[in-house]
Amino acid sequence: MAGVDVFIFFCSGLGAVFALMNFYIIQQTKINPGAGFVNPNSPLNAVTAELKKVEDIHATIELGAKAFLRAEYTICVQFLLAFSVVLLILTSMGSSFEDGMFTTVAFLIGGFTSILSGLCGMMVAVNANARTTVAAASEPPSKLTAAFNVAFRAGAVMGYALCAMGLATLLLLLLCYKTHFATVDTWNVMMDCAAGFGLGGSSVAMFGRVGGGIYTKAADVGADLVGKVVHGLEEDDPKNPATIADNVGDNVGDVAGMGSDLFGSMAEATCAALVIGTTSKDILAEGWGAVMFPLTISAAGIVVCMACSFIATHLKPVVKATDVEAALKLQLISTTFLIVPFVVYLAKALLPESFEMDSVVSGTMTCSATGAAICVSVGALGGLLIGLVTEYYTSHSYQPVRECAYVCKQGAAVNMIYGLALGYKSAIIPVYTLAAIIYFAFSLADLYGVALAALGMLSTLATGLTIDGYGPVTDNAGGIAEMSLLPESVREKTDCLDAAGNTTAAIGKGFAIGSAALVSLALYGAFVVRLGITGGVNVLQPLTFAALLVGANLPYWFSAMTMKSVGLAAAEMVQEVERQFKADPSLLDPNSSSLPDYDACVEISTKASLREMIAPAALVMLTPLVAGTFFGVQAVFGILTGGLVSGVQLAISMSNSGGAWDNAKKYISGGFDPDPALRKKDANGNSTPVHDAAVTGDTVGDPFKDTSGPALNILMKLMAILSLVFAQYFQSINNGKGLFNV
Amino acid sequence: MAGVDVFIFFCSGLGAVFALMNFYIIQQTKINPGAGFVNPNSPLNAVTAELKKVEDIHATIELGAKAFLRAEYTICVQFLLAFSVVLLILTSMGSSFEDGMFTTVAFLIGGFTSILSGLCGMMVAVNANARTTVAAASEPPSKLTAAFNVAFRAGAVMGYALCAMGLATLLLLLLCYKTHFATVDTWNVMMDCAAGFGLGGSSVAMFGRVGGGIYTKAADVGADLVGKVVHGLEEDDPKNPATIADNVGDNVGDVAGMGSDLFGSMAEATCAALVIGTTSKDILAEGWGAVMFPLTISAAGIVVCMACSFIATHLKPVVKATDVEAALKLQLISTTFLIVPFVVYLAKALLPESFEMDSVVSGTMTCSATGAAICVSVGALGGLLIGLVTEYYTSHSYQPVRECAYVCKQGAAVNMIYGLALGYKSAIIPVYTLAAIIYFAFSLADLYGVALAALGMLSTLATGLTIDGYGPVTDNAGGIAEMSLLPESVREKTDCLDAAGNTTAAIGKGFAIGSAALVSLALYGAFVVRLGITGGVNVLQPLTFAALLVGANLPYWFSAMTMKSVGLAAAEMVQEVERQFKADPSLLDPNSSSLPDYDACVEISTKASLREMIAPAALVMLTPLVAGTFFGVQAVFGILTGGLVSGVQLAISMSNSGGAWDNAKKYISGGFDPDPALRKKDANGNSTPVHDAAVTGDTVGDPFKDTSGPALNILMKLMAILSLVFAQYFQSINNGKGLFNV
Repeated sequence: MAGVDVFIFFCSGLGAVFALMNFYIIQQTKINPGAGFVNPNSPLNAVTAELKKVEDIHATIELGAKAFLRAEYTICVQFLLAFSVVLLILTSMGSSFEDGMFTTVAFLIGGFTSILSGLCGMMVAVNANARTTVAAASEPPSKLTAAFNVAFRAGAVMGYALCAMGLATLLLLLLCYKTHFATVDTWNVMMDCAAGFGLGGSSVAMFGRVGGGIYTKAADVGADLVGKVVHGLEEDDPKNPATIADNVGDNVGDVAGMGSDLFGSMAEATCAALVIGTTSKDILAEGWGAVMFPLTISAAGIVVCMACSFIATHLKPVVKATDVEAALKLQLISTTFLIVPFVVYLAKALLPESFEMDSVVSGTMTCSATGAAICVSVGALGGLLIGLVTEYYTSHSYQPVRECAYVCKQGAAVNMIYGLALGYKSAIIPVYTLAAIIYFAFSLADLYGVALAALGMLSTLATGLTIDGYGPVTDNAGGIAEMSLLPESVREKTDCLDAAGNTTAAIGKGFAIGSAALVSLALYGAFVVRLGITGGVNVLQPLTFAALLVGANLPYWFSAMTMKSVGLAAAEMVQEVERQFKADPSLLDPNSSSLPDYDACVEISTKASLREMIAPAALVMLTPLVAGTFFGVQAVFGILTGGLVSGVQLAISMSNSGGAWDNAKKYISGGFDPDPALRKKDANGNSTPVHDAAVTGDTVGDPFKDTSGPALNILMKLMAILSLVFAQYFQSINNGKGLFNV
Repeated sequence: MAGVDVFIFFCSGLGAVFALMNFYIIQQTKINPGAGFVNPNSPLNAVTAELKKVEDIHATIELGAKAFLRAEYTICVQFLLAFSVVLLILTSMGSSFEDGMFTTVAFLIGGFTSILSGLCGMMVAVNANARTTVAAASEPPSKLTAAFNVAFRAGAVMGYALCAMGLATLLLLLLCYKTHFATVDTWNVMMDCAAGFGLGGSSVAMFGRVGGGIYTKAADVGADLVGKVVHGLEEDDPKNPATIADNVGDNVGDVAGMGSDLFGSMAEATCAALVIGTTSKDILAEGWGAVMFPLTISAAGIVVCMACSFIATHLKPVVKATDVEAALKLQLISTTFLIVPFVVYLAKALLPESFEMDSVVSGTMTCSATGAAICVSVGALGGLLIGLVTEYYTSHSYQPVRECAYVCKQGAAVNMIYGLALGYKSAIIPVYTLAAIIYFAFSLADLYGVALAALGMLSTLATGLTIDGYGPVTDNAGGIAEMSLLPESVREKTDCLDAAGNTTAAIGKGFAIGSAALVSLALYGAFVVRLGITGGVNVLQPLTFAALLVGANLPYWFSAMTMKSVGLAAAEMVQEVERQFKADPSLLDPNSSSLPDYDACVEISTKASLREMIAPAALVMLTPLVAGTFFGVQAVFGILTGGLVSGVQLAISMSNSGGAWDNAKKYISGGFDPDPALRKKDANGNSTPVHDAAVTGDTVGDPFKDTSGPALNILMKLMAILSLVFAQYFQSINNGKGLFNV
């Protein structure tokens, strides 16, 4: 085993140990510690009855989440098996049966690793949600440290486990394949086969994101519509039948879906870099170490993120509310800056000083190790900038979200207009940043540079996932506090943690979208390189331009499907909730102790999301396949280009509009503004029209930010990796001109 | 003068006479006929007091509209003069001073013709609005004929006058230029200069669309927010201070803005076809007749539209409510099918049987007269298809809008989610249609084919404009009926006419967007041809791909600006209205006769729209100029491609979401549904929550469909024509590589 392999396995191992360690620490917070076992001064002694409820609710959520994931992953496994047959046949048609087999095996391993990533994230999140509640209840009202730490560590378990697992699996796969592809000149073919790993990861991510996204928002929107808006119930009121489904949704959508998505991004970015890198004779000549450079970036990232995580848990622990957002932001900033020297060192150590690359622009070009390091660094820093801009547009610490809150005084319609405009506007700097990254990376190292920039943006993935996982855990913790009737102060704490989590979730989505755009471009480039096309892609051709329009339409079509699915599923949820309220009017009586039938709502969300996730996934996977089969690769070029440039705008604006509406509502309900009109309740204790307008915005934003917007990442990536994997097959039909031979 | 010139002038003349004739007929309906002059059996005798009010209100609206247009066009004239200096300098730098002069003169003439188009449309619309009200009042409640005819004829005056004026002016310009560019081989340069005509037209259209769009929606949204939603006033209630501004807005936005926009489309499509056509030696060899073929399409269109207009006014006159939509739709269908044989005849008669064209795809290609005729026909038929799909998605006769209405029962948020999804979905077929048109036209006759397809789509422009103009006239007529307290039955009639107008307005926007996309592509192609670039546009280059992302972002940036402007201006309007209601509480007393200060609101809309229209217009005009100057033509290619493919999606979805919300509201307020829950008022006469949810959707849709959406047409076209006109200038900087020499 080469030194570089040891390094990668060592870093992965370190990450895995760190994840286990965090998991162990979380377990020290007992969900129901029992009356006798608690420190006699602990506030927990006053709430033993409530803690029993916490335990029950926790179990119910866990049950719901497991049931959904079991159902969803059953479908995923069926899909993986069925599609692997198609894949085997078509890739074998394109090249040899052997290569087809290798691609298919990589595909299956990628798919199952992605399933495991989602499962693992979800298990930790449901394990930690109630512990966060208990931790919040165990400290005096002003202190947030314990609760923050539990939630943060839960995110970390997912983050490090996922990065470690992804990296180690991919390396193992490559080492196995290397025994077959023994000579250096076959490594390029090997990497083509390994790209199946990315395809598997992304396919599962597509189902996870879309299915999970529909699940969580059907429950959330349904619960809000009928609970908050019509019956004036608080969020997570135990009287609301949809509330358990809502909390389950946070876990299956925001944790499992996000986990699979980002695992897919990392896998694809690495595959793209490997495929393109191995087209360079000089990199191959330098040996395995140079080839593995892309993996070492992620490996170094694990260590850097680990080191920085101690800032949040030990060096500058969170105490009060204002610390939370700062602590999370510091994580992002410190990891980004710390990764740069590592990358420079690795590039210098592993890559040849100067190397020739095939170029889609000019035939061949000369790149340097320094240039490669710059590409990675530009990606990392650009990601941070996108993250910070996202924060500016979605946190209620800044002007844009506050403006959204102010205009709620003029009603829901103006809130909608402002929020949509905010989303559109928030795409400007991220898009210009992406354009600049692409320009520099592309100029320095052609498409290899773009792939490296994507890896740079994802190098701090462990931290990104920590923060992403942290959000839904605190959200759930709040839900559990509310449902188990713990003191108001506990809920206030979790709300505090959750508000910061909302913003950081938006930041995470910014990273995810930005890296997805870079990954897609890199994969698209790898596809073009794979086809052996020189001279680039001319869009001013009948077929390509027509396909460009069609491709640019896909994100819209896809969003229409997913948003409508949420609307439909939410409507079913509303009906069920209303039915329960009618069947048992005592549910709405605050003094009655009767509880609703949560399971019926969980089932509705499960069924609806599984039913509705098929069509959008099929659209994304079939479009490039159909285009390539019938119209040839020129059509695929148009579709990939169009889907990418249009998808990235729509994804960013949807995700940020949604985040902004959510936090505008939180700004009002939290009473942060000096203006007495911006309050949740009026003097008589009724919900104010201003708050109602904000809730309307939040409800519209739900499918924007948690279903359609983030799923567009996968749309871009999945189409590109699919095209790459099927490149030889497309080429085999009338020499790449498709069955219609156009 | 050649035969073809005679033909074009003859058709233009015919159109002008027809416009005058219609204007004369409209004048026969007197606004205040006076008690003695009316037929003793006319229902008008019962409402002489109200007719006096009609006269006053009509005068107030006219005053407001004129004041706004005076202010707006003053800015436009200043802009035209200032920009003509820039244009003269830069184009002279790129080629010769002489060519610069010719371009600049064409630019000024185009700009002033566009101003004239807008003015003319607006004058007719304000002239006819009150006459439509009176016509509606002059017939028994069940009969719509007279009112429909007045409104329809008003639209026709604008439609035919505009087409005739545009065509005749352009031909005159060309004939003048031909005296200078005497030899056939200089005609290509002549057409380049003549392209300034399109630029002038589109620049003014930009200000008209954006300024008018902000004006009308600031007033509309402001009036709705404070009047309907807060104080429960009816639409156009004379007690609402913003109501006159709202009615003025219909004229300055939907009439003057739309008129300038479509005049611009026609001018640009023609210029694109002329520029590309004169690059073909064979077309030049065939002589002036072949060169003028693009103009003959529009000329024939005038005659065809004229013939078909008699179907609506004479052959199948409108009697009852259900006739209206059918009559308007029949206009579109009949003209589209009738134009095809004319086009085939003209192509065969004028174009060479077979001719060589420069091709951006393959160097040169051979085209045929038949092929050219097919291009035009495909464009015309494709436009019709886009129109019909638009109707399906925006008329409450069909499922999509009704679904939007049904979900209003679940509140405003679900209405928003459904409406947005509807808009996204509604883009699918139009985009695929455009892709197919582009594919066929491009394959048959390269970019000349695309330009011809655009002209085909615009060939029935006179009818399109008639229908477009009809809408705001009936909208105003309803406003006047309400404000002058005429019987309920009059308002019901105008509402009927207006509902159909709403749908047809959406159809008109569908045509406008579709043709804009084709025009932009044709202009973009002409730009590439003009630069002498062969081998097309490779997007897989650092600069071009980066610019592609930036270009795709422009429609979002632009929409963010315009939507926020509407929000801001509407907020100012709300404040003013609230101020008036506070200052004089008797305004809200239905029994008091006191009237609000309309002028203050008119002034707010005027000032806000003029202030807010500058920035978006500057964004659109400066982006290609800056990109070309600093980064060179490759960057401009990326920006044009990105702006086009992303803009067309956003434009269609915004415009259709808006149309659908508007008609969903009308479906509920009109009580069309058997479900008793879908009503405007409940049993106690209060507005229902279902209707309130629909109004919220309508309010959000206002800037979507009347400000941002349609202005995106101009964004696409203006950037493309600007690039074409400045092509030589860009080329002159470092050989097209820009000042940064990238």
